Amino acid sequence: MTVRALLFDVFGTVVDWRTSLIAELTPWFAERQHQIDVPALVDAWRGAYAPSMDRVRRGEQPWANLDALHRTSLDTLLAARGIDISEADRQHLTKAWWRLNPWPDAVPGLTRLAQRHTVAPLSNGSVALLTAMAKRARLPWDVILSAELFGHYKRDPQVYLGAAALLQLDPSAIMMVAAHNDDLLAAQRLGFKTAFIGRPTEYGPHQTKDFAPEGDFTLVAADLVDLSYRLTG
Amino acid sequence: MTVRALLFDVFGTVVDWRTSLIAELTPWFAERQHQIDVPALVDAWRGAYAPSMDRVRRGEQPWANLDALHRTSLDTLLAARGIDISEADRQHLTKAWWRLNPWPDAVPGLTRLAQRHTVAPLSNGSVALLTAMAKRARLPWDVILSAELFGHYKRDPQVYLGAAALLQLDPSAIMMVAAHNDDLLAAQRLGFKTAFIGRPTEYGPHQTKDFAPEGDFTLVAADLVDLSYRLTG
Repeated sequence: MTVRALLFDVFGTVVDWRTSLIAELTPWFAERQHQIDVPALVDAWRGAYAPSMDRVRRGEQPWANLDALHRTSLDTLLAARGIDISEADRQHLTKAWWRLNPWPDAVPGLTRLAQRHTVAPLSNGSVALLTAMAKRARLPWDVILSAELFGHYKRDPQVYLGAAALLQLDPSAIMMVAAHNDDLLAAQRLGFKTAFIGRPTEYGPHQTKDFAPEGDFTLVAADLVDLSYRLTG
Repeated sequence: MTVRALLFDVFGTVVDWRTSLIAELTPWFAERQHQIDVPALVDAWRGAYAPSMDRVRRGEQPWANLDALHRTSLDTLLAARGIDISEADRQHLTKAWWRLNPWPDAVPGLTRLAQRHTVAPLSNGSVALLTAMAKRARLPWDVILSAELFGHYKRDPQVYLGAAALLQLDPSAIMMVAAHNDDLLAAQRLGFKTAFIGRPTEYGPHQTKDFAPEGDFTLVAADLVDLSYRLTG
C-alpha cells in the first residue's frame, strides 16, 4: 500500500469544535449580560451546518463559503433567542470557528505523519478559516485544500476528485482520514484509501453516530498518533 | 501600514531556478552520455515559459498548468537537439522544477516573517509543484496559492484578486513580494502593497532587467531576511 498523501476532515476529526466554541462563547455572552444557553446555541449552530450546505448543494442558493453559511445561521439563532448584537460582534463570533482547538493527539500525530507524507485538510471550511486555524493551532499542513476551491461541499465527489487533481495523484495513492463514516464512504467510492478515527465525544452528550467504523476501511485508529504508528511503523 | 498577509513570487524571488536546474541536469545528462549544453538548455527552457503562458492567456490553448507547459517545452527543446529519452525520464526532468533550491536568505526570512504575518506563495507554479517544493526546501508557507486555483496566469488580475478573495483580505492589507517589476506593478495597480527584492543573478550572465525597482513600491529590500527586519522591526 503506497499512500503518498493524507487528507483530513477537520471539524470533529482534527479539532474539537464543541468544547472550543462553548469555552469561547460562555464568557463572551456572560460578560455582556446575555441570558443564553451556550451549549444549546453551539449545538444548534452546528446543527444548521448540514442543512445550510444542502441548500447550496441542491442549487437553492448560489455558492457561499462556510463563513457566510455560519454567519447566516448565527443571525437566525440569535434572532430566535431575541438577542441583538452589533455587526462587529457577529463577525467576531462567526470567526470563533477560526479559533477551534485541536484534539490533544492532533498536532503530534500530524507532525509524525508529515515526516513521510503530504498532509492536508480536506474540509468544508473556507481557505481563510483553515489557514488561520492552522496558524493558531500550529497544524503542520503542507497545503490547504478546501471545498471553497471546488465550489462544492463534501460529500460531493467534486471535492475529493478536485483534491486528487491538484495533488496530481491517483485517488488510490491518497488516504482520507475522518471521524465520520459518510465522509469515508464517499471517498472510498471514488477509489481513495480510508482511515476511521474514533471521536466518540465530538457531539458531547448528543452524539448519536460514528462511534465505530461502518465500512470496510483501509485502517481504523484510535487517534492521529495511533494512525501515525499504524501507517509508518 | 497594516499588512496582514505577504504573497511571494517564487521562481527567482524565493528559489534559484537556474543554479538548481543546472546542478541537477548536468550530471543527469553526463551519466547518460548525452552531449548537451545544459546551461543553454535551462535558459531556453525558462525562455519558453512566458510565451507558453501567453498562449494560454490569449486563449490559443485551453488551461494547462505549469507542469504541462514545462513538459511541452522540454519535448520541443530535446527534439531540436536530437535527444530522445523515455517517457519516465521526461516526467522526471519536468519535475526538476519541483526540486528547486531556495536562495540562502529565503527560509530564515520567511520564518521570521511568518511569526507575524500569513505567508503564501502566489506563483504560476502548480499547486503540486509548490507543495512538493515547500516540503523539500522547508518553506514555511501557511497556505499554497497558485495560478492553477484561478485558471489564470500572472500577470492577469484574476490571480491577485483571487488570492485576496480566498484570504478574505482587502488588497491594501496584502503585500506582494517579488524580484520582478512587472509582477509588482500588476499587483500595485489592483491596490496591493508591494516589496521589491533584488535578485541580480537570477538569470546568471544573461540577466537584462530587474536590477533595480522601477516603480514607487512600498518597500525595497536586499533579500527576504532584510525584508523581515524592515517590515517587523
